[in-house]
Amino acid sequence: MQNFEYYAPTKVVFGKGTQKQTGELVKSCGGKKVLVHYGSKSAKKSGLLDEILESLEGAGLSWVTLGGVVPNPRLSKVYEGIELCRKEGVDFILAVGGGSVIDSAKAIGYGVAEGGDVWDFYSRKRTAVSCLPVGAVLTIAAAGSEMSNSSVITNEDGWLKRGYNNDVCRCRFAIMNPELTYTLPAYQTACGCVDIMMHTMERYFTKETHTQMTDGIGEALLRTVMHNAGILMEEPENYNARAEVMWAGSLSHNGLTGCGTEGDWACHQLEHELGGMFDVAHGAGLAAIWGSWARYVYREKPERFAQFAVNVCGAPNDFSDPEATALEGIRAMERFYHSIGMPVSLKELGVNPTEEQIREMAHKCGFMGKRTVGAFKVLKEEDMAKIYRLAR
Amino acid sequence: MQNFEYYAPTKVVFGKGTQKQTGELVKSCGGKKVLVHYGSKSAKKSGLLDEILESLEGAGLSWVTLGGVVPNPRLSKVYEGIELCRKEGVDFILAVGGGSVIDSAKAIGYGVAEGGDVWDFYSRKRTAVSCLPVGAVLTIAAAGSEMSNSSVITNEDGWLKRGYNNDVCRCRFAIMNPELTYTLPAYQTACGCVDIMMHTMERYFTKETHTQMTDGIGEALLRTVMHNAGILMEEPENYNARAEVMWAGSLSHNGLTGCGTEGDWACHQLEHELGGMFDVAHGAGLAAIWGSWARYVYREKPERFAQFAVNVCGAPNDFSDPEATALEGIRAMERFYHSIGMPVSLKELGVNPTEEQIREMAHKCGFMGKRTVGAFKVLKEEDMAKIYRLAR
Repeated sequence: MQNFEYYAPTKVVFGKGTQKQTGELVKSCGGKKVLVHYGSKSAKKSGLLDEILESLEGAGLSWVTLGGVVPNPRLSKVYEGIELCRKEGVDFILAVGGGSVIDSAKAIGYGVAEGGDVWDFYSRKRTAVSCLPVGAVLTIAAAGSEMSNSSVITNEDGWLKRGYNNDVCRCRFAIMNPELTYTLPAYQTACGCVDIMMHTMERYFTKETHTQMTDGIGEALLRTVMHNAGILMEEPENYNARAEVMWAGSLSHNGLTGCGTEGDWACHQLEHELGGMFDVAHGAGLAAIWGSWARYVYREKPERFAQFAVNVCGAPNDFSDPEATALEGIRAMERFYHSIGMPVSLKELGVNPTEEQIREMAHKCGFMGKRTVGAFKVLKEEDMAKIYRLAR
Repeated sequence: MQNFEYYAPTKVVFGKGTQKQTGELVKSCGGKKVLVHYGSKSAKKSGLLDEILESLEGAGLSWVTLGGVVPNPRLSKVYEGIELCRKEGVDFILAVGGGSVIDSAKAIGYGVAEGGDVWDFYSRKRTAVSCLPVGAVLTIAAAGSEMSNSSVITNEDGWLKRGYNNDVCRCRFAIMNPELTYTLPAYQTACGCVDIMMHTMERYFTKETHTQMTDGIGEALLRTVMHNAGILMEEPENYNARAEVMWAGSLSHNGLTGCGTEGDWACHQLEHELGGMFDVAHGAGLAAIWGSWARYVYREKPERFAQFAVNVCGAPNDFSDPEATALEGIRAMERFYHSIGMPVSLKELGVNPTEEQIREMAHKCGFMGKRTVGAFKVLKEEDMAKIYRLAR
């Protein structure tokens, strides 16, 4: 087991009707003037936004609103938010939405608190030491941003999608009412489940040994998401299934599933470039690339994939042949992806990159030759290109 | 699944050599004048205290020390600490030890920040809204106080042992170096493992349904502690086993294993009275009472005990007879207790209460007829007496 730090200070308020506590929670964090940040019209149409504004009003708070955050949230919207916050004297940012909205809120928070160009943090030119306090009312279980220290923003100038991790941006509170996710389409629900699972799987595939507690949590989380994702394909308004997935989504990315291990994150990096070039849904992109990544790397430590096969996928353990068990686990996971309508290849994802595009994605993913990705197996640019090719 | 709140803001710094970061961590919390609170001479003798004072000095901090905290920490020591903090202008309390020292530190923190008689909080006369910041360097894996919101203090006037739970007392940081627990005797190690397991089991035995994520974490945690407790009986200096138990100890009592369920806590309440009357080790007292509690209550929902038997104890599932499976799980857990030298009866605990003493413990446990305990099965005073009798 490696040394580790674990820090997840977000106060979670989970369950039915909890959005009514928004005003009091903002107030308890010292907020007086709130930026209510949201995405599509659905928060407005569903009445959620009204309910939240009412709650803020009830707590004696004032606010301004800024909607229109899109998936793969844009830097231009972040700039707009920073300017609005400065003009209006905002001291608290409330994100109403999923990962994109929360990530955008965190970026605005950095920008307001730190000054200068907020992109500097995402391009590694500066390190943030402060962030305006952010809270979240979660409406999509997927990104885990409500408890994570990460934020991913896309700069339209060059379509660069870059993440920045810093504890100062962690949400003060996260309100999670599973009912708010009832109306998500099946495809988005499935994408969310894959994203949640990948946040654990990126940490689970490690060469580190003696991580029994962390392994056990990760395996339980993966089994929980798989089981309930299946239910949700047939019963989108099953409260308990929505609740299991939502809670798993937060735990998957708050650090808990990586305590004592070294994360891999190659699939996320590979998918970022896919998303940047083809604007595919993040979860679907991850599903499309994972099997090819797994087959490319599993020989580094087949017994780890065998453990995954048995403890997560319920595959029988062929004790005499860990490699066979490992491969059966990869196939089982792909069958699971199919069962919830997720792709296991770029073709199924609806993407057909040319050889030139593959080379470009690999080149960008490797920061123009400046970095490798992955830890379970360290991948160079040529490895990345091979995995993209395998995934076609 | 029930609505729940989850809030565990403690920053965990886990692994070898982490005690060297003490000074910087106190400083990052704004501490300038530190009360270093500790228990027995072992922290002094082992050189840990010197190492910590050196680290404080390196960070430019000043300090006073207060040792002598005993198991079942005393109110008189808390009063002494409060007076010392006031006199010396202490602004941060560093607990170096296990649950007793951390609980005492939290009580001192309430007393300094709130004024008045600190026992008022433990006797439910007042509610605290503030607490001097507390940090911990953990030397015993057991109580989970390093991440919990609870503190248990014994008032020598009447030997009343009372707990008080409040989020404001949660540790700002917890430094956990498993090496610091190498020298714990086997008996204390085993007691700690039982205490850790019971913090999860008190939450696990619930009539609530649809708690798959929480169940999975709890079951993984229990399996992890059982496996590694066995290792530690033979290899007290096995780093990874110490690490698994230590991390499980924090997760077991920080709220994670009870999300969405209703806790029972009857065994803890029953043991508090045993501890009050006979001053037995908390973990051993819990082990001695648990089997009798379990046999007294399991018929309320045998299938929950059957799940425990199969998923935690590895018992075969007799699908046709959940009661038989449940009972086999209880027996298996008792065999496990025996395997690490823990008692499964009061006799084995070395305690032989008279009928009068049993009635007195039950009467005190029921707050002189003013409360019931338990939730899986609600226990009245007469039930408590029956369980004590069964446990003889």
